[in-house]
Amino acid sequence: MATSEVQLEVVRTRGELRRALAAAPRPIGLVPTMGWLHEGHRSLIQRARSENATTVVTIFVNPRQFNSPEDLARYPRSEGRDLAICAEEAVDLVFAPPVDEVYPPGFDTTVSIGAVGQPLEGAARPGHFEGVATVVAILFALVGADRAYFGQKDAQQVMVVRRMAIDLALPTDVIACPTVREADGLALSSRNVHLSAAEREAAPILHRALLAARSRWAAGERSAKTLRQVMSDELALEPLAKVEYTSVADGQTLRELARVDGAALLSLAVRFGSTRLIDNEPLP
Amino acid sequence: MATSEVQLEVVRTRGELRRALAAAPRPIGLVPTMGWLHEGHRSLIQRARSENATTVVTIFVNPRQFNSPEDLARYPRSEGRDLAICAEEAVDLVFAPPVDEVYPPGFDTTVSIGAVGQPLEGAARPGHFEGVATVVAILFALVGADRAYFGQKDAQQVMVVRRMAIDLALPTDVIACPTVREADGLALSSRNVHLSAAEREAAPILHRALLAARSRWAAGERSAKTLRQVMSDELALEPLAKVEYTSVADGQTLRELARVDGAALLSLAVRFGSTRLIDNEPLP
Repeated sequence: MATSEVQLEVVRTRGELRRALAAAPRPIGLVPTMGWLHEGHRSLIQRARSENATTVVTIFVNPRQFNSPEDLARYPRSEGRDLAICAEEAVDLVFAPPVDEVYPPGFDTTVSIGAVGQPLEGAARPGHFEGVATVVAILFALVGADRAYFGQKDAQQVMVVRRMAIDLALPTDVIACPTVREADGLALSSRNVHLSAAEREAAPILHRALLAARSRWAAGERSAKTLRQVMSDELALEPLAKVEYTSVADGQTLRELARVDGAALLSLAVRFGSTRLIDNEPLP
Repeated sequence: MATSEVQLEVVRTRGELRRALAAAPRPIGLVPTMGWLHEGHRSLIQRARSENATTVVTIFVNPRQFNSPEDLARYPRSEGRDLAICAEEAVDLVFAPPVDEVYPPGFDTTVSIGAVGQPLEGAARPGHFEGVATVVAILFALVGADRAYFGQKDAQQVMVVRRMAIDLALPTDVIACPTVREADGLALSSRNVHLSAAEREAAPILHRALLAARSRWAAGERSAKTLRQVMSDELALEPLAKVEYTSVADGQTLRELARVDGAALLSLAVRFGSTRLIDNEPLP
């Protein structure tokens, strides 16, 4: 299927995917997406292209990782635009399956991750990480990729997926790539499209709150409680921001810390109207 | 490692296994076992050998599928004997890993199967099928086998594993092989070693109960309640047999039936002292 000068192959079924990959040069790099591609995805694709002989992008809005039907229904979709971006980036193969190719009739399997999937997004969005771990296990098995690329913006997702891939002996290395941001600091997210003009203007407060806490940490502050308070205080300056959580957690386990002595993750979830945004900053 | 005239390779780690399999001729047939091999396992190995270019046997007493520590502790083990049988049967490769090669440090992933894993053994042994599905997912991913062979004696296990492999897009076809029996009808099981002489003599009652129900079905009886009663009545003849369940279930879903109109599974679980035995008979 030609969508530009570059020949982009788009497949829809497990069988087509297997056939298309049978003779693909290795290593294979995979960029799993839910579509509505933005510059963050583009950076993942470019990294995959630079490190692999074949680059595969999957476009699948995974119903199992949405914890509300409304959120699933309003998730933005535009396959034509996504395929044009993939063609521009010289992706070799796009897998854009219907739901029943990922979850065949009678599908009844769940992959769940323990401790690292429980706090933060796991607590806020029941079932979310089971949905993520299950679909990524399937995609990793189907593609048999050597490497898969995820955005650091979803830091806990990266940890859940990496744990799953190691534990289930899947052959895919999970690679976290830096969060891509707008000029004003807002992390790119497909959900940003839902922000009103006023909310969009307010949304960089997430990054400012993280940077404020990072500055205090860099100045020597080690109390996690204080660092959480720094984020909360910053967020309180923005009336449109409804804080869901601010967290200072262990960088390996995501358990909330009392003191920051080693690697840690600053993270937060904030609602603007009906749109929920997350962001994070790893320490150091 | 030579244990007989045939050269049998035994590997212990994920890495050794991958290296040993890298150049193995395909197709690869896998026989996953918990060791203490008997004629039932031997029949699986022979079938695998007849259909594949490479035959791999795994020997791993999987802690996660035992729902009691006592049951795990007393599960019989004899690796020397198992390896001798594998050598006799010209197995190409044995994977006999320690626990932390199957479940690496920090392991925290569970594969669970829905409806088909809930009744019967799933209800009697909480967590059992999560343990089975998780370890088999790992073994299938590690070995990348084309086919895996399981005994029909554990009929529900076969259904759980097959569902898991299809759902997670693992490349392994799950093949069920006929139950191997002693001359008196007792299904072979590693657990039979625990039976006292009197219990061993009594144990063929399981198969007789199944055959009694099958006969009534063959004579036209279609009431599942009546067929369950036929099994219970037969088992009641044996004072050492403590019945845990008798079941007449749909052959696809394992839901208990009212009438037997299509494929069905007669099954039962019976205790003799501290030893729990299961058996089944598919209809037709």
